[in-house]
Amino acid sequence: MTIKIGLLGLGVVGTGVAKIILDPSGRNSLLNEISIVKIGVRSLDKSRQIDLPPNIIGTDLESIVNDPDIDIIVELLGGLEPARTLILKAITNKKHIVTANKAVMALHGDEIYKEAYIAGINVLSEATVGGGIPIVKALKQSLGANRIESIVGIINGTTNYILTKMASTDTKFETVLMEAQALGYAESDPSADIDGLDAADKIAILASLGFGIQINRNDIYYEGIRGINSIDIKYAKQLGFVIKLLAIVKKVENNTSKKLQLRVHPTLVPREHPLAHVNGVYNAVLVEGSPLGEVMFFGEGAGSGPTASAVVSDIINIADALKKNTIIDSISPSPHRINNNSYEITSIESIKTPFYVRFLSKDLPGVIGHLGTMFGKYNVSLKSVVQIGFQGNLAEIVVITHHVDEGSFRTALNKMCTLEAIDCIPSVLRVL
Amino acid sequence: MTIKIGLLGLGVVGTGVAKIILDPSGRNSLLNEISIVKIGVRSLDKSRQIDLPPNIIGTDLESIVNDPDIDIIVELLGGLEPARTLILKAITNKKHIVTANKAVMALHGDEIYKEAYIAGINVLSEATVGGGIPIVKALKQSLGANRIESIVGIINGTTNYILTKMASTDTKFETVLMEAQALGYAESDPSADIDGLDAADKIAILASLGFGIQINRNDIYYEGIRGINSIDIKYAKQLGFVIKLLAIVKKVENNTSKKLQLRVHPTLVPREHPLAHVNGVYNAVLVEGSPLGEVMFFGEGAGSGPTASAVVSDIINIADALKKNTIIDSISPSPHRINNNSYEITSIESIKTPFYVRFLSKDLPGVIGHLGTMFGKYNVSLKSVVQIGFQGNLAEIVVITHHVDEGSFRTALNKMCTLEAIDCIPSVLRVL
Ligand SMILES: NC(=O)c1ccc[n+]([C@@H]2O[C@H](COP(=O)([O-])OP(=O)(O)OC[C@H]3O[C@@H](n4cnc5c(N)ncnc54)[C@H](OP(=O)(O)O)[C@@H]3O)[C@@H](O)[C@H]2O)c1
Ligand SMILES: NC(=O)c1ccc[n+]([C@@H]2O[C@H](COP(=O)([O-])OP(=O)(O)OC[C@H]3O[C@@H](n4cnc5c(N)ncnc54)[C@H](OP(=O)(O)O)[C@@H]3O)[C@@H](O)[C@H]2O)c1
Repeated sequence: MTIKIGLLGLGVVGTGVAKIILDPSGRNSLLNEISIVKIGVRSLDKSRQIDLPPNIIGTDLESIVNDPDIDIIVELLGGLEPARTLILKAITNKKHIVTANKAVMALHGDEIYKEAYIAGINVLSEATVGGGIPIVKALKQSLGANRIESIVGIINGTTNYILTKMASTDTKFETVLMEAQALGYAESDPSADIDGLDAADKIAILASLGFGIQINRNDIYYEGIRGINSIDIKYAKQLGFVIKLLAIVKKVENNTSKKLQLRVHPTLVPREHPLAHVNGVYNAVLVEGSPLGEVMFFGEGAGSGPTASAVVSDIINIADALKKNTIIDSISPSPHRINNNSYEITSIESIKTPFYVRFLSKDLPGVIGHLGTMFGKYNVSLKSVVQIGFQGNLAEIVVITHHVDEGSFRTALNKMCTLEAIDCIPSVLRVL
Repeated sequence: MTIKIGLLGLGVVGTGVAKIILDPSGRNSLLNEISIVKIGVRSLDKSRQIDLPPNIIGTDLESIVNDPDIDIIVELLGGLEPARTLILKAITNKKHIVTANKAVMALHGDEIYKEAYIAGINVLSEATVGGGIPIVKALKQSLGANRIESIVGIINGTTNYILTKMASTDTKFETVLMEAQALGYAESDPSADIDGLDAADKIAILASLGFGIQINRNDIYYEGIRGINSIDIKYAKQLGFVIKLLAIVKKVENNTSKKLQLRVHPTLVPREHPLAHVNGVYNAVLVEGSPLGEVMFFGEGAGSGPTASAVVSDIINIADALKKNTIIDSISPSPHRINNNSYEITSIESIKTPFYVRFLSKDLPGVIGHLGTMFGKYNVSLKSVVQIGFQGNLAEIVVITHHVDEGSFRTALNKMCTLEAIDCIPSVLRVL
């Protein structure tokens, strides 16, 4: 029995996938029974980095998802359309789906999973988060015994590369971004990565798996790294922190309410924390659960090889199920798999977290007392206040607070701005 | 349909498992359909840390594996016998198996898997390696698209706790071991952990999964941490390394041969390496594969909660398969799953690795030249030679070599001992 694949897309990831399938020796032996029968692309003229059997590449993607011979559609096009429509069409045609498309799964995952459930087919999406890191399957099938408390990830390689480089070379954001673009680590339009949207897509996917609920993508607060100043990276380091773009989903439960925090933002991470050592293009996801404790997954978060590894593992798992005439996925991704889960999403203003603030001040002796009094008035308790440097004749003061809800904190900050001694507040960052 | 569990053992892990199953809310909803019907222990008089339905605990373990009502046997006894016999009996009776018993799986895994294959049942063993870290399932089902190059792990929590503590407090081995015993991190007879046998069991399990072959447990070279001196930890640190007990399986392939290194020993790990930051009782496993690159899994490697999390995940996966009337495991653990894999095991003498050596020397000016010449004669090329300290009137010299095969290196060292200027060679350690 040969399992027949229709591949949509032959770009970075598609080429990686085809290479693995065409060269199975030394890998899982099921690969010998898997064959790519059709490939859909946009342009037939492009030169391809791979030798393929003749006549399998075409531009009519619709005919691929309608081909009665094909068992599994592997969607590696990217973007919302035509990816979503082709996936839904393939599901109607009872084809199993493997996809690396985080945008589609974050925004249309519910619809796709619902249709898949009705059709009795599998939709696997390991490659949507963390490249070769098997975090999706772990959440679906290995951590289900637990009550998940939180998932915290460095899940965008571009921003992690930029922040790491800014820290190690003391270079400013714009310069490092241009370097990253030249090296191919950032796209020419970098905003999906830089502004946190890509990480938001991915945490939506992880949150829905970890907490067994549907996530409305618009509920996720996100903030990118354009505003990160290399001076804050330096001061953070002096205080024992590194700055990382974190994607966070966190349960806050008490007797009367069940709430979920969903947020992506640059964050000061204590140097001893396992995520602090995740550098360059590497990704990592830290899951906390009960009774599990902490588990972290670390690896290359993107690129042809790692991403293709995840895609092909999904293909192998479906092939295995097909051979056994079963389906894989009833454990997951139905939103009903965890008992009665429903959460209120906490607005960013109501989230309690420690903060890092940098002030520029004219009147050093008076101002530290003023800051303390002012913060005290708004119930913001401080962990440390350090006069850390100078800019011209202004003193730089860095404050780290204890946990405080963001709303009260912002109100306090606004009041501070009116103080005579405070020249400005160049940076406000959250602390893990 | 309720899935019925027979639990063998109600100790640290068994109690953790029972607690999860008896309190399913907020976890995978399949737990609602899983019920523990019998528990086998040694002593009925022991007080138990858990409220159980009456009359389910007994001492007749044989009757549990023979009970026609039971679907899954969960073996949490430990030790080789009666665990092995009970598992085999249960398999004959067509019961699925979940076990946390690394000793049995390392030594009798082949026999158990073969019988399971014949009987058409599943044997899952996530908890045998790395506590709550889902490394077993990842190797079986998530990384199969790859050609695995190496698996390197810190997979014994006791030794990692001791080495971390020795490093952070500059305390000698014996003192830290006693502390660890008092805290329950080391057993009263600590030798299985301290001498590397436990790590050897676990790397046998990982190697057989990663390379698709049967591992003869006796082929694994192992060496524990009793000989680690806190002075070497200090010098290693000065040179940019930490000392960790690593378990390693590594493929070395060329046109004419396919060899596998299998070894457990204390190792100098460069500070920038991801495994260098794995401290205390934490475990981590780093897998390298093609085209995957590096993936690391990190978490608590033992203890009631993490280990029970792994056991219960296995139970849930089997329950899911039972509901769908299928079996999970044909992807794995049959030794045939990777094409034509067969490897020669490299003897420790033939393994090429860099070394760290500490010499005590009488005649400092002459001796560095002598060392260089002597090592040169035996084709050992040196990366650094540092006169690092004194002991009484003897100079301490630390040498780090480039890659060298252990046989030649040991021959060179033996020759050095005859040098007039060399007083003794207190430490020889391998470098990652
Ligand atoms: N690259 C990574 O490291 C990475 C990592 C994780 C996930 N992903 C995800 O993987 C997916 C693919 O990414 P990629 O980097 O491989 O993208 P890519 O290099 O841009 O390749 C896209 C492929 O899809 C084809 N395509 C796109 N739109 C099409 C259309 N409307 N009709 C026909 N063909 C179309 C292109 O055809 P032509 O070749 O003719 O242009 C190309 O072969 C995306 O969802 C991405 O988010 C990528
Ligand atoms: N503890 C960990 O952190 C950990 C982590 C990973 C894997 N594991 C593995 O998990 C397994 C269980 O470990 P554990 O720490 O839970 O051990 P444990 O606390 O010593 O518990 C063993 C249980 O098995 C019962 N038992 C042992 N031998 C028996 C016999 N011959 N007949 C009847 N009952 C017998 C004991 O009965 P009584 O209660 O009556 O004495 C006890 O309930 C072992 O294979 C271990 O290697 C443990």
